Amino acid sequence: MITLSSDFGAPYPAAMKGVIARACDARLVDVSHEFPRQDVSTAAFWLTQTLPYFPPAVHCVVVDPGVGTDRDALVVRAGEHALVGPDNGVLLPAARELAGDVEVFTWAYEDAASTTFHGRDVFAPAAAAVHETGVDAVPDLDRTTATDEFVDLQFPVADRDGDGATGEVLVVDGFGNVITNVPGDVLAGRFGESVTVNGDAVPARRAYAAVEVGERLVTVGSHGNVELAVNQGRGDDAFSLEVGDAVGVAR
Amino acid sequence: MITLSSDFGAPYPAAMKGVIARACDARLVDVSHEFPRQDVSTAAFWLTQTLPYFPPAVHCVVVDPGVGTDRDALVVRAGEHALVGPDNGVLLPAARELAGDVEVFTWAYEDAASTTFHGRDVFAPAAAAVHETGVDAVPDLDRTTATDEFVDLQFPVADRDGDGATGEVLVVDGFGNVITNVPGDVLAGRFGESVTVNGDAVPARRAYAAVEVGERLVTVGSHGNVELAVNQGRGDDAFSLEVGDAVGVAR
Amino acid sequence: MITLSSDFGAPYPAAMKGVIARACDARLVDVSHEFPRQDVSTAAFWLTQTLPYFPPAVHCVVVDPGVGTDRDALVVRAGEHALVGPDNGVLLPAARELAGDVEVFTWAYEDAASTTFHGRDVFAPAAAAVHETGVDAVPDLDRTTATDEFVDLQFPVADRDGDGATGEVLVVDGFGNVITNVPGDVLAGRFGESVTVNGDAVPARRAYAAVEVGERLVTVGSHGNVELAVNQGRGDDAFSLEVGDAVGVAR
Repeated sequence: MITLSSDFGAPYPAAMKGVIARACDARLVDVSHEFPRQDVSTAAFWLTQTLPYFPPAVHCVVVDPGVGTDRDALVVRAGEHALVGPDNGVLLPAARELAGDVEVFTWAYEDAASTTFHGRDVFAPAAAAVHETGVDAVPDLDRTTATDEFVDLQFPVADRDGDGATGEVLVVDGFGNVITNVPGDVLAGRFGESVTVNGDAVPARRAYAAVEVGERLVTVGSHGNVELAVNQGRGDDAFSLEVGDAVGVAR
Repeated sequence: MITLSSDFGAPYPAAMKGVIARACDARLVDVSHEFPRQDVSTAAFWLTQTLPYFPPAVHCVVVDPGVGTDRDALVVRAGEHALVGPDNGVLLPAARELAGDVEVFTWAYEDAASTTFHGRDVFAPAAAAVHETGVDAVPDLDRTTATDEFVDLQFPVADRDGDGATGEVLVVDGFGNVITNVPGDVLAGRFGESVTVNGDAVPARRAYAAVEVGERLVTVGSHGNVELAVNQGRGDDAFSLEVGDAVGVAR
Repeated sequence: MITLSSDFGAPYPAAMKGVIARACDARLVDVSHEFPRQDVSTAAFWLTQTLPYFPPAVHCVVVDPGVGTDRDALVVRAGEHALVGPDNGVLLPAARELAGDVEVFTWAYEDAASTTFHGRDVFAPAAAAVHETGVDAVPDLDRTTATDEFVDLQFPVADRDGDGATGEVLVVDGFGNVITNVPGDVLAGRFGESVTVNGDAVPARRAYAAVEVGERLVTVGSHGNVELAVNQGRGDDAFSLEVGDAVGVAR
């Protein structure tokens, strides 16, 4: 199986699928091609939330504002998974979710046909090659070289403050739910009551529909972190929050 | 085969696909992940228009504003098909299109990992389980219990009025075509002429391009109902209609 | 393999997939369902950029403003590929990219169930039928008739003017990159310097990120033509260009 992730929209991913289908008969599954354009951090976050649910696979990721520069192409081995993509940090957080120990390799691509579409000309062929040989062979592939020098990406960690914590908004999802890095356990024992979010009392609830339609709530999302939401509405609007904004939760 | 339908956009469906791919090797086909958010009725309509074209399959549907509340999870057996989704009516109209006789079961899910993403934690595993055992086994699955108490959803029926009818807008598609519940037969014998729609004379035509670009027409859509459209334009704008608005057609 | 292309968005393609899945077990790959609505030329361009990367396949294309009129349905044989779609030119440019010699057939469809959704009722069944018999059998299929009378579509060709050229904008991609018909070789030997684009000096660069974020550049895109872009921004806005606008490049 090869999963595909990008900020391409349509139809660029189709060229990648064609390239892969000519090279191997891997099953193809789209993770998303709607990641915000050139937003490495948001893509990296969503990969941590999706790739661990897959069986062993090669994950081809192209959110790549540096395409055509001298940035490296990477193949990351993470247990039985491999990740292929640009050396800008996008692969690392998910790789660490997939396996405790990850190995990072550069992929030689001097022969790329374009300088603007490495998804088609570098990463799709690399993903197909890794798929064909199997993840165990990655260290031995002709075009891979182990490296300790790569761009890493770590999500910021919230600061505990007594029973509460102060963190920030990591991403906003398509529903407008505001996903923070504040650990969900700060809401433990508080469901059904209110907690203080950035100074306001907000109902802590397990379900969006536990408040009236249009009302705000704070919950623990499927990622395990504190999430700020509105029942059938947009939490980002109602809380006036966007990515990077500070979020303090006090019990 | 498992089909997937939701209002999730991307990338949440990818986590569902991963869960399913770990559980079984069912072929996965997306119906849509772009249903209007929390709009159970619109999703239910589109399922009636798409699922009957599929071979026997398990249809996993997640338009679920009540996620995390005590609403049930359902498995509906409809002939050789099964539908899996929340107990809010979204499954029933399509199920009745798929088979004259449907059986409804609840699916026990006390062990859900989240209260906000039952697509991943309840419905995807349920769909995989039903797929693995086969639809015939649904009544015998440990986690299913037959029930007569479920939320139903029936689309409103137009009122016949002589040769005409008065109904309402069921949905607007992505082209802006206004899909009503007025039976298409009210236009029988009238193609090439005009009929009266909400008081205005509108050309009845079989093809959008049978009127000039930008002009209004009334036709019978692929669903068999009266549809209000504009050739290469948006019918909803040109007719000033939205979901639920009344539509009267007189010959 | 059957690829699917349309301007349908969701969920109409799902009905096509169901129809095909009932008729055969072809692998299905989406090229795009987000082509601009009723825009035959843009779809034709993107098909030239994607279909040649696929292994031999049947390509089912539905951008079809004339649906329901007497326009023909076509099956085009292009080497080991076949293309199925309406007779409006959308298939021809890609067919010529796929094979030097193309054969065009009409597909009889008197039995179409609708006049508004031939993707479901004509082209999906035709694609499945062609897939099942194989491309070599196309000339012998009961429903095909060879024809020399079909709508063709040729992209405009830029005029060479010394070392430069004057052409036009063919499409704008989802990033806002402005794709022209000016051959990329007009930038040969000029990377790292500036060239004149519609009277303005613009840096010629191989990579978007070779200029500062938000700055304009001119490059050769993955299609081999001159492309006007902004690093992490929208070239169409920065150059005030849209499809059909003239673009002159002087060295």
